[in-house]
Amino acid sequence: MSKTAPQIPLPFLKLRKRDAEPLFLQLYGQIKQAIFSGQLKEGERLPATRALAAELEISRNSVFQAFEQLILEGFLEGRKGDGTYVCAKIGIVPARTPKVEETPGTEEYIPDFSIEPLLPFQSSIPSFAHFPFKTWAGIAADVYRNIHSLHLGYGDTQGYAPLRNELADYLRINRSIICSPEQILIVSGSRQAINLSAQLLIKKGDQCWMEDPGYRGASMAIERWGGRVCPVPLTQYGLDIDHAIKTYPAATFAYVTPSHQYPMGGTLPLAERLKLLQWAAKQKMWIVEDDYDSEFRYNGRPVPALKGLDDAGQVIYTGTFSKVLFPALRLGYMVLPTLEMARRFRMLKTTIDRENPVIDQAIITRFMREGHFARHLRKMRILYKKLQDELTALIGKHLHPWLEVEPGDSGMHITGWLKKDMLAADVEKAAGKQGLILQPVDDFSIKYGHPKGLMFGFTGYPVEDMEKAVLQLKQILINLQP
Amino acid sequence: MSKTAPQIPLPFLKLRKRDAEPLFLQLYGQIKQAIFSGQLKEGERLPATRALAAELEISRNSVFQAFEQLILEGFLEGRKGDGTYVCAKIGIVPARTPKVEETPGTEEYIPDFSIEPLLPFQSSIPSFAHFPFKTWAGIAADVYRNIHSLHLGYGDTQGYAPLRNELADYLRINRSIICSPEQILIVSGSRQAINLSAQLLIKKGDQCWMEDPGYRGASMAIERWGGRVCPVPLTQYGLDIDHAIKTYPAATFAYVTPSHQYPMGGTLPLAERLKLLQWAAKQKMWIVEDDYDSEFRYNGRPVPALKGLDDAGQVIYTGTFSKVLFPALRLGYMVLPTLEMARRFRMLKTTIDRENPVIDQAIITRFMREGHFARHLRKMRILYKKLQDELTALIGKHLHPWLEVEPGDSGMHITGWLKKDMLAADVEKAAGKQGLILQPVDDFSIKYGHPKGLMFGFTGYPVEDMEKAVLQLKQILINLQP
Repeated sequence: MSKTAPQIPLPFLKLRKRDAEPLFLQLYGQIKQAIFSGQLKEGERLPATRALAAELEISRNSVFQAFEQLILEGFLEGRKGDGTYVCAKIGIVPARTPKVEETPGTEEYIPDFSIEPLLPFQSSIPSFAHFPFKTWAGIAADVYRNIHSLHLGYGDTQGYAPLRNELADYLRINRSIICSPEQILIVSGSRQAINLSAQLLIKKGDQCWMEDPGYRGASMAIERWGGRVCPVPLTQYGLDIDHAIKTYPAATFAYVTPSHQYPMGGTLPLAERLKLLQWAAKQKMWIVEDDYDSEFRYNGRPVPALKGLDDAGQVIYTGTFSKVLFPALRLGYMVLPTLEMARRFRMLKTTIDRENPVIDQAIITRFMREGHFARHLRKMRILYKKLQDELTALIGKHLHPWLEVEPGDSGMHITGWLKKDMLAADVEKAAGKQGLILQPVDDFSIKYGHPKGLMFGFTGYPVEDMEKAVLQLKQILINLQP
Repeated sequence: MSKTAPQIPLPFLKLRKRDAEPLFLQLYGQIKQAIFSGQLKEGERLPATRALAAELEISRNSVFQAFEQLILEGFLEGRKGDGTYVCAKIGIVPARTPKVEETPGTEEYIPDFSIEPLLPFQSSIPSFAHFPFKTWAGIAADVYRNIHSLHLGYGDTQGYAPLRNELADYLRINRSIICSPEQILIVSGSRQAINLSAQLLIKKGDQCWMEDPGYRGASMAIERWGGRVCPVPLTQYGLDIDHAIKTYPAATFAYVTPSHQYPMGGTLPLAERLKLLQWAAKQKMWIVEDDYDSEFRYNGRPVPALKGLDDAGQVIYTGTFSKVLFPALRLGYMVLPTLEMARRFRMLKTTIDRENPVIDQAIITRFMREGHFARHLRKMRILYKKLQDELTALIGKHLHPWLEVEPGDSGMHITGWLKKDMLAADVEKAAGKQGLILQPVDDFSIKYGHPKGLMFGFTGYPVEDMEKAVLQLKQILINLQP
């Protein structure tokens, strides 16, 4: 490139003067595009700014701004006293044909299986119609008004301390768990809790007891971290501990839902709990106790948590706000057996995603401290009991030739068993077409099948829709019967 | 146990009648405790409810309630016409000495290194004093008032769709990234983005280029997923690509911060970007582009993202709201090269922790749509430039014998280099004692040390404290000099 390099005219430049996009930006974009397309080549000299401005009938300043940015980005270079050049050092510029999408991705957008609409018989979704949103919004407004009092930088991975204090009290009074706030870790839900536990406590090839049928999120986490899922059948109460001990005595990890087995609904009696704990203490087996909807117990007080009986410190407890408040909060909590374990879990969470958002934690803290939480739980317990009775009665009235159900002591769904020669999967499919969400128990089966079991939620959809939905289902069952 | 089993008196019962705890709960707890301690043994018969109520001077109903719960939990059993017994089937009950803490955990509570206070020279924390909290709270109040319009059940792991729409526009206009909202995944921050990427894209033993010094969150994620961290030294612009290609030609994964190298501050020029992309396309090497504070560019427009030049679809882009809004939101986003990859990332996030909380996403959407976001960014860009100039001037004025700094083109901190025979780690320690957070560059070094580099943030603490802090540091440097 000699000093006398010709100035390349830029005839392709077409500025839209009435466009919302500033002129210098248009110029910038078009020159860059010209370099990519090869219209302007490495080492070529651009027109002088004054000449270009005159030619394009724009201010010289717009040209300056465009050139300046292109120089900064390395597309152009200024040579002192010699104007502006396309940079010689760009390297081979690929011919650029903008593609939004690569070939393998031309497929349709696949909706996520995690979206759960609020339709009849959907389970595990609380009743939004009865949530005290006004109270919640009032507290939220207050928290936002005083947002300066919160730590808005990078916070404590362990979670908002006042919330952990509230939880320690709540767990002591309601779940018979004595723990300090420093043993509590706020997480983004049971799913994260189980993943953290699996990662820290499972070594490759470890045998892991898993309720069968049971929560898929748990078996997926076990497999993800190299554990061997050992499916354990259920008794009417939950995990068949004798079977588990006999079949997989070397297990080092167990996932259980003793308060309300998911999805079958059993409650593990005290004798079984103690047996499980004794075995765990002897074998140094870790137990992850998922206490996901223990709050909704309809007969007597909630059964105390396994963690409350855990003298040997083998139980990792996990609870969630998804069922008692609402899922979109994405907040749950764990109780770790020791401060040292709490430290290890905290460190791991720090490396994965740090703490959970603080504002929602502050709102929940106030919601608990001011008594709204306990009040809401009491109200929901009464409401859900009524809804369960209602659904049981409706199924008994309209569907008894096809279905057998028994009200449970707790939880947000009941399980129905098909009497006739038909399969839950077929009922699910036919019902799905009519907007009824009936999940087959076998969606959660590993080795032990229950092809005739269907889950009936009663909490998340309007009670007015219940009888209509039951009658819809009746027609579906009539059509399906052999 | 015969029908004539004696009723065991319960002399140990001591109810506190004026206590807040209901009497039946006290009774319940004390009987349970007595079973655990062995004062009440398996198969023993309890006093009749009427007699016990009279003896304790409480209502018979309280006794009923306590017994009922203990029966439900399996501690007691009622025998028809024969009163209440301690259950014979509990199994060997361990002598219970409640311990909150196991031996290994007797250590003190260890505070988390992730808490970052807002003190002079702290870096990477935005200015809360200039955040439009009032606007934010107003939008929040509105979102809460209309909370019913949000999906509060289990939502789409990919993130709130209107936010993804806003982001697609934002990225197109500001970062030259053309993508559809379906390629965007909302995550809980860069940290999660990098962990998801490492898990899906790294196979055990894979070589991974890592800027050195560089973001520790990235090297930890690489190691966690079995990758081999290959430290690449920096040029003044960022990753030394020639060195990387020559030394680790087999690498299949690279982590880069091309807009603003963390922590050194360089910006990768176009030629280097294209070289990196060409190599990645040829080698099928994945590039994770962390664009963490690209918005704060003080000279010219923000440099377009690597992703904007990525024709081959090898770049996974990640951005965060931590720097432009505030860290406690815990929200970031990724742009995946294809819909198929977006699907894989979404599925993985579903198994780990599902979607992020929806309310904050709805607030941000409104904040962006109504122009507050762009306005706030513009204001912060001007403010931070002023703060950077101010800090540079103050260090030049007071600390020039000890420190050399140069203002950067972008970002939230500048790097200072010690001139005298002293080490950054010693300065950090001495400054820390006086409440100054000076992070040594070597905190981020892997193989290539920079023992004299210190990071000076200028955004997160009050500007009024700046000169005082610089003078404090001067005294510290005087004391430390040999």
